[in-house]
Amino acid sequence: MEHMDARTAIGLGAASGPARIAGPGEAIGPDEAALAGRNHGLPLEALRYDITPPGLHYVLTHYDIPPGDSHAWRLTVGGLVEEPLSLDVAALRSFPTVTHRVTMECAGNGRGLLDPRPVSQPWLDGGVGTADWTGVPLHILLAVAGVRPGAAEVVFTGADHGVERGVEQDYQRSLPMAAAMAGDPEVLVAYAMNGSPLPPQHGYPLRLIVPGWYGMASVKWLRAIEVSAVPFEGYHQASSYVFRRSEDDPGTPLTRIRPRALMVPPGFPDFMSRTRVVRSGPVFLTGRAWSGHAPVASVEISSDDGRTWHEADLDAPGRHHWAWRSWRTVWTAAPGLHTLGVRATDTHGNTQPLRPEWNTGGYGNNAVQRVPVVCLDE
Amino acid sequence: MEHMDARTAIGLGAASGPARIAGPGEAIGPDEAALAGRNHGLPLEALRYDITPPGLHYVLTHYDIPPGDSHAWRLTVGGLVEEPLSLDVAALRSFPTVTHRVTMECAGNGRGLLDPRPVSQPWLDGGVGTADWTGVPLHILLAVAGVRPGAAEVVFTGADHGVERGVEQDYQRSLPMAAAMAGDPEVLVAYAMNGSPLPPQHGYPLRLIVPGWYGMASVKWLRAIEVSAVPFEGYHQASSYVFRRSEDDPGTPLTRIRPRALMVPPGFPDFMSRTRVVRSGPVFLTGRAWSGHAPVASVEISSDDGRTWHEADLDAPGRHHWAWRSWRTVWTAAPGLHTLGVRATDTHGNTQPLRPEWNTGGYGNNAVQRVPVVCLDE
Repeated sequence: MEHMDARTAIGLGAASGPARIAGPGEAIGPDEAALAGRNHGLPLEALRYDITPPGLHYVLTHYDIPPGDSHAWRLTVGGLVEEPLSLDVAALRSFPTVTHRVTMECAGNGRGLLDPRPVSQPWLDGGVGTADWTGVPLHILLAVAGVRPGAAEVVFTGADHGVERGVEQDYQRSLPMAAAMAGDPEVLVAYAMNGSPLPPQHGYPLRLIVPGWYGMASVKWLRAIEVSAVPFEGYHQASSYVFRRSEDDPGTPLTRIRPRALMVPPGFPDFMSRTRVVRSGPVFLTGRAWSGHAPVASVEISSDDGRTWHEADLDAPGRHHWAWRSWRTVWTAAPGLHTLGVRATDTHGNTQPLRPEWNTGGYGNNAVQRVPVVCLDE
Repeated sequence: MEHMDARTAIGLGAASGPARIAGPGEAIGPDEAALAGRNHGLPLEALRYDITPPGLHYVLTHYDIPPGDSHAWRLTVGGLVEEPLSLDVAALRSFPTVTHRVTMECAGNGRGLLDPRPVSQPWLDGGVGTADWTGVPLHILLAVAGVRPGAAEVVFTGADHGVERGVEQDYQRSLPMAAAMAGDPEVLVAYAMNGSPLPPQHGYPLRLIVPGWYGMASVKWLRAIEVSAVPFEGYHQASSYVFRRSEDDPGTPLTRIRPRALMVPPGFPDFMSRTRVVRSGPVFLTGRAWSGHAPVASVEISSDDGRTWHEADLDAPGRHHWAWRSWRTVWTAAPGLHTLGVRATDTHGNTQPLRPEWNTGGYGNNAVQRVPVVCLDE
């Protein structure tokens, strides 16, 4: 029998367990409640704003919000480049800048509606928001640094540090060279949101913005950009943010946002059930629709829980290709209980399912929103 | 046997149930998750900021955030007054204004830690924030309108409308005349937060600010102020926001904020468990402390789950009587599992219990924060 040290070493496992799927009927636990208390979604009535005001745009922070000192901050550009860069915020802002209006959605939006539920941030519908992001196109920074032959990917490192499923890490993600260098969607190193410096929770002082992709790609508190000859295999690239039907499925990495439409819930709510109350007669319905794959082609409404549908009026496409579009219609409410729904279809034919497509991480659930409404008998 | 109409009338009860206490071991349900997804607490690392940046200050909205049009908005001052007022935002801003730095805490902060848990917004520790609020002292508006003899209370009505436990209502609260007319704490009709117009979720364009009181008193989206000869008996005055040990306890209304200290959790977190990880040696601990009853007199720290305590260094009181104060100390971490705690005591001798004081609404739980920490063996 081998000698065992009486003193048991204490390691990261004491803080960090493996990924877990909730048991049948298992309700939300204290760990999920702690995440839900820190992070927040868009209150759906805020779909009324073209640009989501600060504090209403969804936020998902993996670890702590780092204390960002914009004077001391340095962004490095290195790896497989001719001339590595180290830029302070002022130096970054001296490059040509652009502003893009972008609808960003959390890859886990809708996770809390899956059954069984992967245990993580228990989003319902609200993990979304739209902002004007101002910054320097990534392809300009890469051109200045000079990408050398053999480059396969660009790896982005944030200043947020923590442990996840036993792995201590800074938050890191990569993009293939083609996506990093693209002109549309154009990836930005952003320093402003809606014309003001980034709020701390949105990446102050610098973050990546990848229009059309789920939010995990838009690395916050960006401190390093590294051009690499090999595919990045870090935790948030290879372990998380992958669609897997089961634990042994090699899976498909998450990239672009699936189509979704959401409505401003009509009438007024009950505080606790969030069920909506309307009075009979015409009820104006409006909301937003988006897709990271292609322009939205149509938005349809159902007032009978998805059995029948009719088309809503959709705003003409504008100059903001990667932002949500408005839609509107009128529903004639009759006394009783109703379940409203709305679904978007894009020009590539991608649409929304009535029931979620289950996966182990609880990602990309774009099943049709269900809005229970009581129409009063008066 | 009486005749029954075959057609059953549908009323608010179809949307709205009675208050409920969770069963033994009952985890958080979809209704609580919906509230937790809309509302959010202060991520505790944001205790580092004297003034909480927009989007990090806690938010609790009962119904929907109303669409506030600052041009069309009118605030009326009426009831038992000589000369009723109807003010637009510009007219309000023509009165003398002041700025007060105020720490605001939700009355339900800590509810999610009660056992059994009253079913509502499942706050853990984060229902708090500090802001600079600019506005017109309420006593000036009341003096201009001229309070008539016999006034007992002032009733405040917000534009947020919904149903709660079966009652359809605008959000309304009252203050006794003495509190409404006081010079310290001075109640404000505020139009700015941290020097900018109020964000929608914080009451745009106008809200009440009652320094030192739990947040329910600071009515958002304020549209009417009415001086009344009789005590207000509305839902949010007489039914909710009352400490009751049981349903038949007449109870005590909530007013001022109980003392509390919170720490910036040290080291770095595990994503899912939120357990903190540190390495052995000196660990700097810091945070904030406040009380709505009296100045904070001392802050103490425990590293053994409340068995022993030592005093932290507390900032001298400044000119912001109703804002939190900083504290700091150093803890020498040794490998193993630890539970840190911090408690505040005010100059009136009010302090924090180790275990919560249970009440049916889950209000005012200022039990000591518990921060599990793993100190690694390396």
